[in-house]
Amino acid sequence: MRIDLNSDLGESLGSWTMGDDEAMLDVVTSANVACGFHAGDPLVMQRTVTAAAERGVVVGAHVAYRDLVGFGRRFLDVAPHELVADVAYQVAALDGMCRLAGTRVAYVKPHGALYNTIVHHETQARAVVTAVKSYDDALPIMGLPGSAVQRLADEAGLPFVVEAFADRGYQPDGTLTPRSQPGAVLHDDDAVAARMVRLVTEGVVEAVDGSQVRLSADSVCTHGDSPGAVQMARATRAALEAAGVAIRPFLR
Amino acid sequence: MRIDLNSDLGESLGSWTMGDDEAMLDVVTSANVACGFHAGDPLVMQRTVTAAAERGVVVGAHVAYRDLVGFGRRFLDVAPHELVADVAYQVAALDGMCRLAGTRVAYVKPHGALYNTIVHHETQARAVVTAVKSYDDALPIMGLPGSAVQRLADEAGLPFVVEAFADRGYQPDGTLTPRSQPGAVLHDDDAVAARMVRLVTEGVVEAVDGSQVRLSADSVCTHGDSPGAVQMARATRAALEAAGVAIRPFLR
Amino acid sequence: MRIDLNSDLGESLGSWTMGDDEAMLDVVTSANVACGFHAGDPLVMQRTVTAAAERGVVVGAHVAYRDLVGFGRRFLDVAPHELVADVAYQVAALDGMCRLAGTRVAYVKPHGALYNTIVHHETQARAVVTAVKSYDDALPIMGLPGSAVQRLADEAGLPFVVEAFADRGYQPDGTLTPRSQPGAVLHDDDAVAARMVRLVTEGVVEAVDGSQVRLSADSVCTHGDSPGAVQMARATRAALEAAGVAIRPFLR
Amino acid sequence: MRIDLNSDLGESLGSWTMGDDEAMLDVVTSANVACGFHAGDPLVMQRTVTAAAERGVVVGAHVAYRDLVGFGRRFLDVAPHELVADVAYQVAALDGMCRLAGTRVAYVKPHGALYNTIVHHETQARAVVTAVKSYDDALPIMGLPGSAVQRLADEAGLPFVVEAFADRGYQPDGTLTPRSQPGAVLHDDDAVAARMVRLVTEGVVEAVDGSQVRLSADSVCTHGDSPGAVQMARATRAALEAAGVAIRPFLR
Repeated sequence: MRIDLNSDLGESLGSWTMGDDEAMLDVVTSANVACGFHAGDPLVMQRTVTAAAERGVVVGAHVAYRDLVGFGRRFLDVAPHELVADVAYQVAALDGMCRLAGTRVAYVKPHGALYNTIVHHETQARAVVTAVKSYDDALPIMGLPGSAVQRLADEAGLPFVVEAFADRGYQPDGTLTPRSQPGAVLHDDDAVAARMVRLVTEGVVEAVDGSQVRLSADSVCTHGDSPGAVQMARATRAALEAAGVAIRPFLR
Repeated sequence: MRIDLNSDLGESLGSWTMGDDEAMLDVVTSANVACGFHAGDPLVMQRTVTAAAERGVVVGAHVAYRDLVGFGRRFLDVAPHELVADVAYQVAALDGMCRLAGTRVAYVKPHGALYNTIVHHETQARAVVTAVKSYDDALPIMGLPGSAVQRLADEAGLPFVVEAFADRGYQPDGTLTPRSQPGAVLHDDDAVAARMVRLVTEGVVEAVDGSQVRLSADSVCTHGDSPGAVQMARATRAALEAAGVAIRPFLR
Repeated sequence: MRIDLNSDLGESLGSWTMGDDEAMLDVVTSANVACGFHAGDPLVMQRTVTAAAERGVVVGAHVAYRDLVGFGRRFLDVAPHELVADVAYQVAALDGMCRLAGTRVAYVKPHGALYNTIVHHETQARAVVTAVKSYDDALPIMGLPGSAVQRLADEAGLPFVVEAFADRGYQPDGTLTPRSQPGAVLHDDDAVAARMVRLVTEGVVEAVDGSQVRLSADSVCTHGDSPGAVQMARATRAALEAAGVAIRPFLR
Repeated sequence: MRIDLNSDLGESLGSWTMGDDEAMLDVVTSANVACGFHAGDPLVMQRTVTAAAERGVVVGAHVAYRDLVGFGRRFLDVAPHELVADVAYQVAALDGMCRLAGTRVAYVKPHGALYNTIVHHETQARAVVTAVKSYDDALPIMGLPGSAVQRLADEAGLPFVVEAFADRGYQPDGTLTPRSQPGAVLHDDDAVAARMVRLVTEGVVEAVDGSQVRLSADSVCTHGDSPGAVQMARATRAALEAAGVAIRPFLR
């Protein structure tokens, strides 16, 4: 039994700090690193991928809409040819910073509103797949199971890494509980850790209505920007290891 | 006898157009392509390098200070570690767009105020050399002969491509005539063309005071953003070819 | 009989020029001036409002989504409290530049995707009304008749200036023909001029299906960024004056 | 005896938080509010001036070079006509947000590299004075005594508010000890508080070499973005009040 743990990192900008990247890099095995469109700047990117490489943490390009003030959390109706260029630019820029650090971009994970949009938005989902495949046709995309982007990646022959969310509630159909509904976000470290142990060892998660949902994941996302984020990630990792699960990048 | 012709291209931004890139790409052999810091956006970059690749025009990364409104023409007192990251980011981003177009970044040419600053500013010059060498230790920098950046590139074992300026006046010591002085910029197509023929075939250019200056160049820069730019570039190329000079990228 | 002519101006940015503002300012009576979010920078804004003030052309704040690369033409799902602040910021900044030029912002016209969105998007339309009213409860909004923003401005007691489009086709119900359909954009100067004369003198415009639509407008928008824009605007103005229509700002 | 206490506030950006503005607004009497060029966005600006207005804290425009990633701390060689427009734009935008909050911009304090530059850079100092005077010829500039900007403001008939720095060391000639030298920044709350009491009540501060420097100030700056900033500001205010000094905005 094995699982990958991923987290959003490198989300500082200039003089503004977000999250405790150093601490989180000691817990996770894959780092979704911002590429300058929703967060991050060249120096933050360089430092983040260097710190990741030093610890053997795998680097993913956390690509987003160009929206610093909105942190990439607002839908932008970008045309597909624009989105192809925007995504390729971000992957390439981060890959270059990785090159300086002796590593490389090993996967692409869309961020925020782009992540949510390409669950269902065919045109933008296809643009993301086109961008990644054009850059490197063996580069995996990380995302939600059952999403448009997963289907289109499959059709394009692009690897797809399925992730589950440690601190999110699930609907009976396996989709995430919308943030506007009760039970959408979980705050208890022990409960989250126990859920993830069960997910990884049994392939089951309990939905908000108490029903049991079958779910298979290559990676578990532990959010990085809330105050207790590091503690929850540590608790999850410790519980998984105690249950005999190996914590390893999905790639190896 | 051979020479490379280079020009600043890809300087449009979103809905704003600058220069006639298509026409200029039929004249030059090397394209200095903006990387999004002083001009250019991901889509403009992709289109420019695609158009260059289709014509066999070599692509260089035209790296700059982060200053869209000032078009990279204003000195910015950026710290060396910041500049290393900024330059590497730009080279990497453009290299990624090249990858989509089946080509690659073949040299780095600093733009505007950064270009002028690293003629004498040791700290920033060293940062540019460090950035380029860290990204690819065989990647040439293009610039002025006798500059700090040339000396530091030499010391670092990085290739350096010396360029001359088709439409600029020269001082008796081989430096450019400052723009604030008479004779700094030449406007006559025929005179410019004749000067470049003499430069390439005899290694001599006439200075503003009428003295003869020995000058050796791997590439001739023909500016791209003035109204008559394409015509002057064409006249220069035609005169060089008529004199038996091969117009070829400096690399081949 | 009288009418106001308005046009989008001040859409240059740094070294990039758009449109021929000087020429257009001699034709129109109201200038929709970009405020730095989709186009324009402080210097462009200052020069544009100064040139407008010198000619007695009324200045409007052309507020937009924060999207330079997309020129404000892409929908951005901005939250209402964010949009209130963004609109107020833009109006205020332009009003300050007007103060330096001895004039003031006399109306607010949303631009591009924001303009189109608040025809039907209640939340964003209300945010625009709130922002304008909070800044100055006598400041008019300019827009489409029958739009959500018109209704909400009416409810809020805010003046609303109805505009017609010189070069756009109309549907039988008085709405604009979508750009994806034939007849959406008109290119013949004489036809456009004749249509506007009939609109102003008879209150009627011919729809794309040949039917006659009753339409009342306080202002006619003549687009500014196409090559023949100035010529079409001049033709329209000349035809209106020949028909005895006074060309005057809607305010006076 | 009376003194004004000022602090840099509103330096958050989108999802990034900087400083504890709410706490600091309960201590100071004047708030230097970022205007979107080095920090701040329209929503942060609106919230900051609203919170200031609710407490009767006076609002100043904290104008800066356009440099978010560098937080306005890097010199930018902006031309004077550009700087005039940039400064006026920032003052105007913040003044508009103040209007929504029922207050107004009561002074202008340049930030970071611009602040330091106009101590000696005549051209940029004059541009700042021109911008402020053009916007409102009774609007004070806050800055260092003996600076170029003070002299030019005096010549222009513009009010000038002299400030001292609570946590900075002074040279025997009354200038600030450069940050590169020992004693440049003070960290002991009690020592800082005692210095400020002496400055306000006796007009004397002890320089780094132990000599006594005569210094007169209208306002004392307490820095806002270090971890112990609020505590130091509280200690300074408490000591001043205990010494019978009234803490009041410089304006009243």
